[in-house]
Amino acid sequence: MRTLCHDLSASTPGEEVVLEGWVHRRRPLSRVTFLVVRDRSGLAQVVLPAGTPVPPEETTVRVTGTATANAQAPGGMEVTDATVVALTEEAATPPVELWRPGLDVALPTLLDHAPVMWRHPAQSARWELAAASLRGFRSTLDGLGFTEVATPKVVGTATESGANVFPVDWFGRAAYLAQSPQFYKQQLVGVFERVYEVGPVFRAEPHDTVRHLAEYRSLDVELGFVEDHRDVLAVLRSVLAGMVAAVSAEGAAVARTGARLPVVPEEIPVIHFADALALVGASADEPDLAPEHERALGAWALAEHGSDFVAVEGYPMAKRPFYTHPWPGDERWSNSFDLLFRGLELVTGGQRLHRASDYEHAIRARGEDPAAYDSYLQAFRHGMPPHGGFAIGLERWVARLVEAANVREVTLYPRDLNRLTP
Amino acid sequence: MRTLCHDLSASTPGEEVVLEGWVHRRRPLSRVTFLVVRDRSGLAQVVLPAGTPVPPEETTVRVTGTATANAQAPGGMEVTDATVVALTEEAATPPVELWRPGLDVALPTLLDHAPVMWRHPAQSARWELAAASLRGFRSTLDGLGFTEVATPKVVGTATESGANVFPVDWFGRAAYLAQSPQFYKQQLVGVFERVYEVGPVFRAEPHDTVRHLAEYRSLDVELGFVEDHRDVLAVLRSVLAGMVAAVSAEGAAVARTGARLPVVPEEIPVIHFADALALVGASADEPDLAPEHERALGAWALAEHGSDFVAVEGYPMAKRPFYTHPWPGDERWSNSFDLLFRGLELVTGGQRLHRASDYEHAIRARGEDPAAYDSYLQAFRHGMPPHGGFAIGLERWVARLVEAANVREVTLYPRDLNRLTP
Repeated sequence: MRTLCHDLSASTPGEEVVLEGWVHRRRPLSRVTFLVVRDRSGLAQVVLPAGTPVPPEETTVRVTGTATANAQAPGGMEVTDATVVALTEEAATPPVELWRPGLDVALPTLLDHAPVMWRHPAQSARWELAAASLRGFRSTLDGLGFTEVATPKVVGTATESGANVFPVDWFGRAAYLAQSPQFYKQQLVGVFERVYEVGPVFRAEPHDTVRHLAEYRSLDVELGFVEDHRDVLAVLRSVLAGMVAAVSAEGAAVARTGARLPVVPEEIPVIHFADALALVGASADEPDLAPEHERALGAWALAEHGSDFVAVEGYPMAKRPFYTHPWPGDERWSNSFDLLFRGLELVTGGQRLHRASDYEHAIRARGEDPAAYDSYLQAFRHGMPPHGGFAIGLERWVARLVEAANVREVTLYPRDLNRLTP
Repeated sequence: MRTLCHDLSASTPGEEVVLEGWVHRRRPLSRVTFLVVRDRSGLAQVVLPAGTPVPPEETTVRVTGTATANAQAPGGMEVTDATVVALTEEAATPPVELWRPGLDVALPTLLDHAPVMWRHPAQSARWELAAASLRGFRSTLDGLGFTEVATPKVVGTATESGANVFPVDWFGRAAYLAQSPQFYKQQLVGVFERVYEVGPVFRAEPHDTVRHLAEYRSLDVELGFVEDHRDVLAVLRSVLAGMVAAVSAEGAAVARTGARLPVVPEEIPVIHFADALALVGASADEPDLAPEHERALGAWALAEHGSDFVAVEGYPMAKRPFYTHPWPGDERWSNSFDLLFRGLELVTGGQRLHRASDYEHAIRARGEDPAAYDSYLQAFRHGMPPHGGFAIGLERWVARLVEAANVREVTLYPRDLNRLTP
């Protein structure tokens, strides 16, 4: 019966224990040899007689020995009188020493050697927070009556946003990778009212920045029978609170990343786009917020509302997709929002059009033929409720949470303009 | 404050209630008009004076009225003295009458009109069982110390299985849709020991059968520090039990599908491939089980063990991928298995090789150069534990559960040789 490293401290001194894991570090001293074993739960110390051969770092081993109290050992317990059996061949030396507390390595090395670099405890903890975030996202929505859906990632037309799609050769026919589940999640509001999906989305945008990936995980939500975008924002608030709660529950991983967890306020501060421009001293005819404006708004929300989050509502219709619902009474603005987290855009959301005739009009206004959107428009012709939704980028969320400089650092195997491996 | 249809029965008679949903059916009679409202929770009956105009079926409405006890109404409660307000334009007539109890429609109609056909209660219930299965899958694995991962769906090389891949134009470079997360989930066992992923996989196999989709949802699991494939099978057994338990909790949806839920036995019956051939009267040199053999084995498991599930272990090495671990002592056979559910293959799994030298040997034996697998082999050179895993096809699982004739019937938006829309 295997004991996980984390649970060694709960063993009875004198008990025989079996550890399985990786040789995290071996330290042959003159009078004794220390072996630190790493498994999914943490680290444990094994004490061996001086001169005992120990396989090189990263070799997988089984250690059988006696649990022995030692106030100096991690968790107050170590393993003595131990036998070490290798479970595989001797491991090759990793590109960096994974037992050092920090992972001080250039980005290309980190990414080229991802299968090994993710083993570093400070690095694996970052992904553990991503996984906890997914748990919190789903459990919150499950509790609110949402249904998980799975929509196709290959589509027959590139209608949603034109040029920035990846072409796929589909049995000799032209197809495209889906840029978002937008059209499908809306249709499925017509079935389940409240839906969510966690899945890959693909953007063929040739941006080579610290914030863009060509494939990323989108946490998509859509719900029907809303009054306006404020109902959508209220669900987003619950989702963020659920994600932070799930992350908080991973205390050891949080500590390994050094993350400062945000507090999600009962109500997220909201500012209208026009007021936001005025607040940051931008010209009133700016069509969008520049990164420095987002940073200034983040600082304002923290100073004025004690909040790491701020929502900017009412973005100009001209900058939003055709399915966006206008601001009632003033069609320059929209019932949509961006949510900034620590001064960076994390979420885009809002209310959508729900009348078939509004869609026909909006599509024609773009100079396009509604017939090209026929399967999407089916849902609206056959009755849809007022609805809206949002999408959170998982990698951006985790990057801001752990204050990583580049989203690639928190993505298991990033894909971008230049990178298709490992 | 909105009342869900399902909760109407819990209202106090005389209470004012607000329903929101779709006009499921309107029935103008000579003395009264019935309106049945459908929302995500179910149906509710509204009684209106004869001649009251009611929008056509599928229009979304808000109904404000009085909860009134009536033993004839669904749940014993209906809404009277009601005002009906349409939330959108009048809905177009659906291709079939969605209020009829059964959805008796040809497959092409079902698929072409998916956005509307999924609204039929018997059809939406099928997906609700899929969603419940995903919940059960994840919660079981979360409880067993697994970490959810997200691996890339676009890869730079088509090494895993050669020809049956979809080419992608990646910023002008050649890339491919991932056929499975196999290589990545193994590498990540080196990080987290126990991992799972739910995601799309893409198979460019020109099979036009009732069981094949070109894009489907794969429920992937991989775990380290196993003795052999029997440890993997034990986790699969727990996962299936968790999925069935989560489905059982959706009593109303189960009833709408008419599904007979299987009992997952404490131990899934296991038969060796060679014994399975003998049992079904096939020649001992058959390299694989034919569909009629699978059906016969399913019948045998049910008759002999009272089990809807049976695992066939020891498949010939010649028919398994190069990373398969051979059967100790007899390298004709492998430490791998297929799980049959009601006589159809549902899961493939097994133990994998874990020594770097075994990989080099296995890849060379295929006449290939290990250098082409360099990023995958990194993990093994730097120390991996004995490990194994499995993959469940979501659509096949649901199709067998509800005894659908074709996997397309239980897929929200199927993709195959001929279909890229809706």
